[in-house]
Amino acid sequence: MANIAKKVSWSGRGDDRGERTPLLNGDEEVKNNRQVPDTLDYDNSENQLFLEEERRMSHMGFRCLEIRRWVICGLIGFLTGLIACMIDIAVEKLAGYKYFAVKQNIEKYTELGGLSISLILWAVLNSAFVMFGAIAVAFVEPIAAGSGIPQIKCFLNGVKIPRVVRLKTLVIKVFGVICSVAGGLAVGKEGPMIHSGAVMAAGVSQGRSTSLKKDFKIFEYFRRDTEKRDFVSAGAAAGVSAAFGAPVGGVLFSLEEGASFWNQLLTWRIFFASMVSTFTLNFFLSIYHGKPGELSSPGLINFGRFDSDSVQYNLYEIPLFIIMGALGEGNVTLHWLLRFSHAVLCLRYIHRPCLQVMEAMLVAAVTATVSFAMIYFSNDCQPLGQDKAEEYPLQLFCADGEYNSMATAFFNTPERSVRSLFHNPPGTYNPVTLGVFTLAYFFLAVWTYGLTVSAGVFIPSLLIGAAWGRLFGILLSFIASTWFCCVNLTGGIVRMTLSLTVIMIEATGNVTYGFPIMLVLMTAKIVGDYFIEGLYDIHIKLQSVPFLHWDAPPTSHWLTAREVMSSPVTCFNRVEKVGRIVDVLSNTSTIHNGFPVVAHTRKICGLILRSQLIVLLKHKVFVERASSRLSQRKLQLKDFRDAYPRFPPIQSIHVSQDERECMMDLTEFMNPTPYTVPQETSLPRVFKLFRALGLRHLVVVDNENRVVGLVTRKDLARYHVGKDGLEELHLAQT
Amino acid sequence: MANIAKKVSWSGRGDDRGERTPLLNGDEEVKNNRQVPDTLDYDNSENQLFLEEERRMSHMGFRCLEIRRWVICGLIGFLTGLIACMIDIAVEKLAGYKYFAVKQNIEKYTELGGLSISLILWAVLNSAFVMFGAIAVAFVEPIAAGSGIPQIKCFLNGVKIPRVVRLKTLVIKVFGVICSVAGGLAVGKEGPMIHSGAVMAAGVSQGRSTSLKKDFKIFEYFRRDTEKRDFVSAGAAAGVSAAFGAPVGGVLFSLEEGASFWNQLLTWRIFFASMVSTFTLNFFLSIYHGKPGELSSPGLINFGRFDSDSVQYNLYEIPLFIIMGALGEGNVTLHWLLRFSHAVLCLRYIHRPCLQVMEAMLVAAVTATVSFAMIYFSNDCQPLGQDKAEEYPLQLFCADGEYNSMATAFFNTPERSVRSLFHNPPGTYNPVTLGVFTLAYFFLAVWTYGLTVSAGVFIPSLLIGAAWGRLFGILLSFIASTWFCCVNLTGGIVRMTLSLTVIMIEATGNVTYGFPIMLVLMTAKIVGDYFIEGLYDIHIKLQSVPFLHWDAPPTSHWLTAREVMSSPVTCFNRVEKVGRIVDVLSNTSTIHNGFPVVAHTRKICGLILRSQLIVLLKHKVFVERASSRLSQRKLQLKDFRDAYPRFPPIQSIHVSQDERECMMDLTEFMNPTPYTVPQETSLPRVFKLFRALGLRHLVVVDNENRVVGLVTRKDLARYHVGKDGLEELHLAQT
Repeated sequence: MANIAKKVSWSGRGDDRGERTPLLNGDEEVKNNRQVPDTLDYDNSENQLFLEEERRMSHMGFRCLEIRRWVICGLIGFLTGLIACMIDIAVEKLAGYKYFAVKQNIEKYTELGGLSISLILWAVLNSAFVMFGAIAVAFVEPIAAGSGIPQIKCFLNGVKIPRVVRLKTLVIKVFGVICSVAGGLAVGKEGPMIHSGAVMAAGVSQGRSTSLKKDFKIFEYFRRDTEKRDFVSAGAAAGVSAAFGAPVGGVLFSLEEGASFWNQLLTWRIFFASMVSTFTLNFFLSIYHGKPGELSSPGLINFGRFDSDSVQYNLYEIPLFIIMGALGEGNVTLHWLLRFSHAVLCLRYIHRPCLQVMEAMLVAAVTATVSFAMIYFSNDCQPLGQDKAEEYPLQLFCADGEYNSMATAFFNTPERSVRSLFHNPPGTYNPVTLGVFTLAYFFLAVWTYGLTVSAGVFIPSLLIGAAWGRLFGILLSFIASTWFCCVNLTGGIVRMTLSLTVIMIEATGNVTYGFPIMLVLMTAKIVGDYFIEGLYDIHIKLQSVPFLHWDAPPTSHWLTAREVMSSPVTCFNRVEKVGRIVDVLSNTSTIHNGFPVVAHTRKICGLILRSQLIVLLKHKVFVERASSRLSQRKLQLKDFRDAYPRFPPIQSIHVSQDERECMMDLTEFMNPTPYTVPQETSLPRVFKLFRALGLRHLVVVDNENRVVGLVTRKDLARYHVGKDGLEELHLAQT
Repeated sequence: MANIAKKVSWSGRGDDRGERTPLLNGDEEVKNNRQVPDTLDYDNSENQLFLEEERRMSHMGFRCLEIRRWVICGLIGFLTGLIACMIDIAVEKLAGYKYFAVKQNIEKYTELGGLSISLILWAVLNSAFVMFGAIAVAFVEPIAAGSGIPQIKCFLNGVKIPRVVRLKTLVIKVFGVICSVAGGLAVGKEGPMIHSGAVMAAGVSQGRSTSLKKDFKIFEYFRRDTEKRDFVSAGAAAGVSAAFGAPVGGVLFSLEEGASFWNQLLTWRIFFASMVSTFTLNFFLSIYHGKPGELSSPGLINFGRFDSDSVQYNLYEIPLFIIMGALGEGNVTLHWLLRFSHAVLCLRYIHRPCLQVMEAMLVAAVTATVSFAMIYFSNDCQPLGQDKAEEYPLQLFCADGEYNSMATAFFNTPERSVRSLFHNPPGTYNPVTLGVFTLAYFFLAVWTYGLTVSAGVFIPSLLIGAAWGRLFGILLSFIASTWFCCVNLTGGIVRMTLSLTVIMIEATGNVTYGFPIMLVLMTAKIVGDYFIEGLYDIHIKLQSVPFLHWDAPPTSHWLTAREVMSSPVTCFNRVEKVGRIVDVLSNTSTIHNGFPVVAHTRKICGLILRSQLIVLLKHKVFVERASSRLSQRKLQLKDFRDAYPRFPPIQSIHVSQDERECMMDLTEFMNPTPYTVPQETSLPRVFKLFRALGLRHLVVVDNENRVVGLVTRKDLARYHVGKDGLEELHLAQT
């Protein structure tokens, strides 16, 4: 698998730029043919500069910082809400035009005969929409493909996927998701919202944009990985909140996925961002719908109103829920769904961008065909003008004053289809039609998942779940099955647990189903985990990025830091020759990002990062210069912040032959108190330190405090538990 | 304040055992006049024995352990649910008898005149109930007083309050809470449920009970602080879940208060315990109410049904919510409430147990009088037989076929009063009566908070909030005010944030108010924090226990490990003389719990705990014996587990003069890889390490790896932020 994985990139496009691995740090490095798998550093480098700044700051100063953090979170929430609002309105408008045109056409040809022309029109319209979206994604920003949730999970975990939080990605993502949803693909707009929120957060909190080449010179204090992660958590939460109208669920999502350390103040800020986000969306949508002030649409998804009286369950149904969760159709379906997705993801690398666009268009056309067939072969007519608002009623072969009820479900965006499946009265659907549809839609969804378009997997899994549920409901006359199949399937696919429960409760606006939802999700998770990993985890594993799970593998007590660490380590002296630093940094065969600084006999006295060295070299902070030109400005924390996070590559820094002979004093810039462990420390202990503190490097010392090795995130992520114990993964290595 | 604090004990009883500090580790130490402030160790001591055991365990073994953890969590949930059920039924029965008797009496004397006799009957009945509860608490187990939430917060934080998780405490707590609620005090039964759940968890997970002197020899693997904490988290969550019918809220409570490190698997288990707990309660209550299978009472508290149509709010109300949260009466009330509670807690130490019982009885009588006056002076009559079930309708001076509406609210348990205040139609209450009641009840609640009875503060704060809200509602015709005043006041008092929001949403069974609840809680929290700490925090601070907050104080970068650490440190050699160990452990002037083990020139090579040394001494693991008697059983991890958590005091271990000359080899038992930091490490960095890893001791070394100091939890907890920057607290010192 690792071999296949190496060829897969996040964007689903790989071999066309043969030398490129998923972990390249921006385009600069492609040119230099350097391949740096990058991780984020969630441990502050507490060097002298940093400490001096912190010590200069008064109590009031910290208060102001705190207020600024709140303001940023508010902004993140507001902007995320606005984006969600924009997506919603754009999709509604575009889909409206599309369905209007197709409806006109169908009505015209129903009597004349030749409905195939309508089908072609529908397919062409779908393909056209999808084409725009796919072109943008495939040619402009491949990282914007998919839902973006695995990428954000990685970011919060500490893996840096290049370009994932750039403004350009956001623009393409938003454009792409509008196109794919309007194009009728089996996708949702919820997943991408989470990514969008995260990008928004990364942008706003840094007070600048690389894509726009604009630096607002604000929020400079927050230009480091630690702070940025906190804001990205808030952004992701705001995204969930806007997508599902579930602010508490959003907070839980962020905490479940990202924050290894639960801090109350941080949680509050994340919560604030979530609240502002759902409120903004709600407010602007209420204006758009012409009922300002009526806060009835808190999220993009809207399951419609579950009336308290219609959602009742009884004690005897609880075992049914559990059985459903455990071995119901959900898990078999799920199993194959995930297996297929896996295969699709693995095969994905054979595609070129133009082929990808064509594939997406093909899928769009097929989706239209399937929906069309569903409607065409259904004979179920309902009288028009019921209070349930059917948006694009199709008469088709029904008598005058009636409409085709199947069309309410499938002549519509997937989200509305879900709602129809939930709320349409029993007997609306023919079991055979429904079965065929579910199967067809199932394959479409899997196929779509691998496409180069921006799209979420939430809605399709809900839709398949709902369709299965309807089927079961027909077979068993089991009232709540629709809802629970949805939950079950979705839970099985995404494997979010606590957060999904809360999201579902918040999205339906009713806690009555809370307990069964939990039961179903828990069983689905436990049973599911036994067979196959969740979709996001499969996705992450395929990328073979250094993703750290919650705990060290249980049987890893055999291993100690000595076995795990990379050794020998390149160290620098406190005062080091510039030539040597340049040589070490330029060495493309061994790319290191952190270097222990040692005194005589390799005694550890600090840790310095590649990025810091690069800034030092760029500003030519050499000992000789400092003494010759006293007027030279002292390097400040600001210089590091200005360069963050895209430090120039070493090749772009010119160091003359004379300068190579100079010396650099690292004392002031290194972290003088890096965390260290002795060689005998067990792997679980090292792991816990990494996970709890968000470390990137951990220095291993002997009992004389001499550096003997360096444990990096990648060293740890290598070990994982297979079917028969500990296995060593081959990570995308450079 | 620190001076006062020294005299206050957790039980509200202090000076009667003058020499006793709140942090005594059981009774043994009182006898020996030793005063050990104890903390819990949430970092595994990975010594050779431990590692050997872990390494022996197969992949399957870990699976089994995991399954056992799940079983325990299920048991915890089940038993907690049962306890909640028992409390609920007992209170209902007892209160039923009481109100029935008083009602008969009132009816008899309404016509005859001489209602004062009824009042006396009521007061006497109240006092009698409360007397039993107060006697049990004051004389048998003082730690069972109050809600127990601050104590559980401390436990999860890593502070060991003696006897807090014992079975005896649980029994007294349950008995006490039944008595105080049935006795009509202004208290709730929700807080104590959280404590009860935690005790249950500590008992079940350890597979034995000290109070019963019974060891079931099961779950021995879990006999260490780390595992115990996880289960106690689950128990506390199960308690919240049973109390409020809020399983998600329970999980959040545990995470907010306790778990510094969010682990997905742990979260799942906590969630499972919560679910089982609410389900058990629901199930048994449904049987008790004669409607088996109808799961309609998921929690002890029941706000009644908030109909979706009646809970509507509009956009323009949102600023009102915020204003209410920010400067509404809630915060003024709150401010004084907290100030008073503070004063009451501080003054509390003047009491002796018998006085405490009498005080509790007095309060019970006064409470009855206030309620009686409320009913007596109300003239509001309502026709009998409305569909709203009035449980003990009092006719009093109303015409036949009518009843006194005020009596539905106040001739009842506080919980039902809250419900009446929520649901009774507008116009039920006279503003003046309501105002007087609120004021009276307010003082009563504060007075009650300091009493030596088991009781929660949730319901009284909800009740006061609801009464204020009714008042405001009357003044402003503002429909939702009742509900929000409640939330506001409660939020202001307990300062739980995310969890309280979710609890409130789950308890009302309606998410409609979710957004405004969040707004109100957030504003209340922000404004409240500016003025005064929350009630639980006040309580914790008064005890001056080494409680670690989320972050180091912001201006503490000035401080380094060098300033914070305790120095000089008592160290042991790898092979140490028994006499020296005994002397060090017996030294009552400096009680240490962790000792660095050093090689020559004080080079760190491990860390050993007092508890481990005591077990070693008890089993006489001396080098001389090992060589002389080869047959001697090797000390196993089991021996440490058997002694956990109440290791005998050093004085109880007899070491002969000969044995004093023996040597002890600590190599196998010490933790060979303790976390260390250099002296220059800043306080925030040290703090982060402590908080994230749950440390108890952190060894400070110089650059030669020589031990120079030891940072303990107490050293860190000393620093805190006052109004004008960093302050140093004087912790209860020994």
